[in-house]
Amino acid sequence: MSKWELEAQRKRKQILGAIPSSWILENAKQQMISAGFTNARDYIDTIMPPNEVAITNSTASELAKKISSGDIRAYEVCYSFCHRAAIAHQILNCCTEIFFERALQRAKELDKYFEETGKTAGPLHGIPVSLKDQFNLPGIDTTIGYVSYVGHKPPYESLLAKILEQKGAIFYVKTTVPMAMLADETESNLHGYTYNAINHKFTSGGSSGGEGALIAAGGSPIGLGTDIGGSIRTPASFHGLHALRPSHGRVTYLDVANSYLGQEVIPSVIGPLATSLGDVEMLMKVIVDSHAWELDPKVVPLEWRDVSAIKHQKLRFGVMWSDGFITPHPPITRALKETVEALKKAGHEVIEWKFPHQKEVLELAKKVFGADHGKEVFEVCKISGEPPAECIKQFVDFSVQEDGANVNVIDVTEWWKIGQEKSNLREKFFEHWGRTSEKTSDSRPIDALLCPVWPTSSFEEGESKYGADNYTVQFNVLDLASVILPVTTVSQTKDLPYHDFRPLTDRDEEIQSYYEPTRFDRMPVCIQVACRRLEEEKAIAVAAVVENSLKA
Amino acid sequence: MSKWELEAQRKRKQILGAIPSSWILENAKQQMISAGFTNARDYIDTIMPPNEVAITNSTASELAKKISSGDIRAYEVCYSFCHRAAIAHQILNCCTEIFFERALQRAKELDKYFEETGKTAGPLHGIPVSLKDQFNLPGIDTTIGYVSYVGHKPPYESLLAKILEQKGAIFYVKTTVPMAMLADETESNLHGYTYNAINHKFTSGGSSGGEGALIAAGGSPIGLGTDIGGSIRTPASFHGLHALRPSHGRVTYLDVANSYLGQEVIPSVIGPLATSLGDVEMLMKVIVDSHAWELDPKVVPLEWRDVSAIKHQKLRFGVMWSDGFITPHPPITRALKETVEALKKAGHEVIEWKFPHQKEVLELAKKVFGADHGKEVFEVCKISGEPPAECIKQFVDFSVQEDGANVNVIDVTEWWKIGQEKSNLREKFFEHWGRTSEKTSDSRPIDALLCPVWPTSSFEEGESKYGADNYTVQFNVLDLASVILPVTTVSQTKDLPYHDFRPLTDRDEEIQSYYEPTRFDRMPVCIQVACRRLEEEKAIAVAAVVENSLKA
Repeated sequence: MSKWELEAQRKRKQILGAIPSSWILENAKQQMISAGFTNARDYIDTIMPPNEVAITNSTASELAKKISSGDIRAYEVCYSFCHRAAIAHQILNCCTEIFFERALQRAKELDKYFEETGKTAGPLHGIPVSLKDQFNLPGIDTTIGYVSYVGHKPPYESLLAKILEQKGAIFYVKTTVPMAMLADETESNLHGYTYNAINHKFTSGGSSGGEGALIAAGGSPIGLGTDIGGSIRTPASFHGLHALRPSHGRVTYLDVANSYLGQEVIPSVIGPLATSLGDVEMLMKVIVDSHAWELDPKVVPLEWRDVSAIKHQKLRFGVMWSDGFITPHPPITRALKETVEALKKAGHEVIEWKFPHQKEVLELAKKVFGADHGKEVFEVCKISGEPPAECIKQFVDFSVQEDGANVNVIDVTEWWKIGQEKSNLREKFFEHWGRTSEKTSDSRPIDALLCPVWPTSSFEEGESKYGADNYTVQFNVLDLASVILPVTTVSQTKDLPYHDFRPLTDRDEEIQSYYEPTRFDRMPVCIQVACRRLEEEKAIAVAAVVENSLKA
Repeated sequence: MSKWELEAQRKRKQILGAIPSSWILENAKQQMISAGFTNARDYIDTIMPPNEVAITNSTASELAKKISSGDIRAYEVCYSFCHRAAIAHQILNCCTEIFFERALQRAKELDKYFEETGKTAGPLHGIPVSLKDQFNLPGIDTTIGYVSYVGHKPPYESLLAKILEQKGAIFYVKTTVPMAMLADETESNLHGYTYNAINHKFTSGGSSGGEGALIAAGGSPIGLGTDIGGSIRTPASFHGLHALRPSHGRVTYLDVANSYLGQEVIPSVIGPLATSLGDVEMLMKVIVDSHAWELDPKVVPLEWRDVSAIKHQKLRFGVMWSDGFITPHPPITRALKETVEALKKAGHEVIEWKFPHQKEVLELAKKVFGADHGKEVFEVCKISGEPPAECIKQFVDFSVQEDGANVNVIDVTEWWKIGQEKSNLREKFFEHWGRTSEKTSDSRPIDALLCPVWPTSSFEEGESKYGADNYTVQFNVLDLASVILPVTTVSQTKDLPYHDFRPLTDRDEEIQSYYEPTRFDRMPVCIQVACRRLEEEKAIAVAAVVENSLKA
């Protein structure tokens, strides 16, 4: 075993070692399978005490209400989520850091404060919040998927962590990411593979795969991921969660670790994943109300706006059935169809959406992510001697680095051209959006755009070649606010393969060939509800209208 | 004469040819000097009809009020400014495009609209607005200081021009810039030199030098410049005008020509220059109220906020007497002293400001502006065969290009490092700003920062080596909202050379040696009043408090 492999092994043992021995299960995943379960949430419900099951099946908003009314103590809530996260990790491999003792101590202090003052510390008083392993917390490793970074403990804490803690949140785990956050499944030399909580054969998605799996398994009520090409939305969608990819400048990224610092053409953003839209809204409001713009120059001083009128309005939607390159699998198309029908039935208007520059949008993302031909990843890997993770090779062509020929890294004038191309595409998109007013019955532009998240509802371990970030990465290039909304689950009886499928491209054929109703049966299906730049409030409010229309 | 020289000569004749022959003066500048004037505004007041003098000495707000109450017609206003701009151009060489006929025709239409409806077309109804020659207007050249771009007529109009026109503004001239907007004086192979309206021996500043000269001469009530290192603020300061450098994202730059498109680390911004703070506020409010964010993805959807409470508050100020590298000339220091005294007398608090990373801020700007070693300028020059203008060589080292060795252009990974360095500096600056709460009597951070605009009150033609952008470029790196406020004029009796001057650097010695009271006598002295990112409303409101304190 090489040195980096030993280091990774040591780290994984350390994580398990942080779990109280009474919560350790032997071969947890195998036990689950033997018990006839594929869904970790369902399985864990059967092996935990009922009071803990009840707590961990509550939303963050429900828990906040109960804690603030004295119906339940922060300690009980924290204990239950620690327990459940411990089990979830043993089944799904979703945590990179576990620090329950610290969390339970803090829960006690919060309870004491509440008992003594009758007040909460803030709107998140006693709410466990899971953090993707890019957040820096005092004394805890931040490794972002590299063996090379084991032991890396920055001397500062992420501003957002400080803010949430001030509002009463409790941190207890950090969650897995693929190496450098550059993949749509979550695997690293350091932590191995993170599985899907709904079906253990599938990927958790990436790069916030640990968050997606943990929250879907009930091991966290709410968490924070990051998104540069779909990294919040893919795991959320693969787990049937609610989530938001905010526009750049709405949520502080200050002192959060990242790859490719200084790459500002398509910046990564932070956003919440949760089990309800109400929780997504609640957390976003807490974040924006904190006025982080006073400390973080990248945050826009934009208060959380009141958009409550939206729920009484007739809205206009654009629907993008396909991007013209990758046809979504049948259940995704059905989810969109059901949504469109429900919206029309509720009196809203839906028009077809087709942006003529879609191809350039996708190509631009490739240029940005490939600008250094993996130089940074290659150099960080050298520290420990580990190789670049397999799962990121889909996004980064390392051949130039492996040849030692890194003179091919593009120069700044080419980079400026890419930056300008991005701006031009955003302008064209905004213009196109504005021109939808020519198609709507009341001559007003659409309020939101509906589209798939991913062409498939997930993919099995290592099968990322059957995925494509076409539907997510477009909104990183365009910087839209996009909500992930669960609509349905795959039905092997309803969702038969297209009988008239004509592939648009070879890649389209390959991805569509992956669809078999039995393989995906009962996997969640989400859609995106996207509004324009910095319209996070509106995106959430509109998504609520969509959700209510679907429920009606 | 070479081909590009002939082309430039032809263009200059064309500009003069657009002036009605009755407004043509023979040797206008010489006539002014012979009449004993150095100040173009004062001189023009003596040679124009009194009614036109009265109109052209009014602020935009005063004119808007008179037009909307029917006291004066748009045509009269437009005619007077066309006439005065024609004279100003002949003395100062400040216009690149003159299109009076179109403007007067539009004024007639506006008058007709007002007569027929009793309403104005918008808050700028009938107000002449001058535009720096980066704005694109239908059928009119945009040359940004290059002979190479003569005849360049983009098929689109700048969004901001469209907006202002919709609100009733009248365009009638575009104004000079140095080649590529890369200098602090305004000179190009195409248009020659633009002189200072207050004293013809001096520079108008740059790169919005044409705007500064034209407005100060009374040839425009209000105009728009751009600023990437001080290009709005330097000309405003050299002419004793009011101006604002807004933060990036507040004013739409859509379809405005620029150098170095896609360079997003220190982006150029657009802002107003005027003869009163009220006009600056009025124009900014019109711009922000237009909701340009619906069309321009770079604009932040931030409404114009009500900050009227500020005028009743006790405020806290930081004052930066010197940046530690270039000592301002005595009149600049006196202006700051008088400001500080006036503020204290009015009950405000002023503390000393010293940012420990000032040197890195200045160095960062050099890295950004020098990233391509002038490659773009060099390549645009090739189109016409013109050489790079002398005045921009202070900012750009062309030697690499002249050697043909442009492989030295930095690569993208270096660029990302520069981008990250900028972000780190902004973070440190915000932190430092927040920590001023430790020094104020009520433990609140400062509201605004007071500092010089330029170490000198201006400099004579071609003497840019006695200037330094230290005090302006810092706010481009840091992206602050900065107002230019006229405080005083140089007094050869009050402002004697420092008797105890000890140079901080050789450059400091050189610049200080340039100070002679008689040379600068009566030149205007402005200061900067800077607030944090995207606090344009506050910066203007605080500057009004400063102005009122000074008047008291």
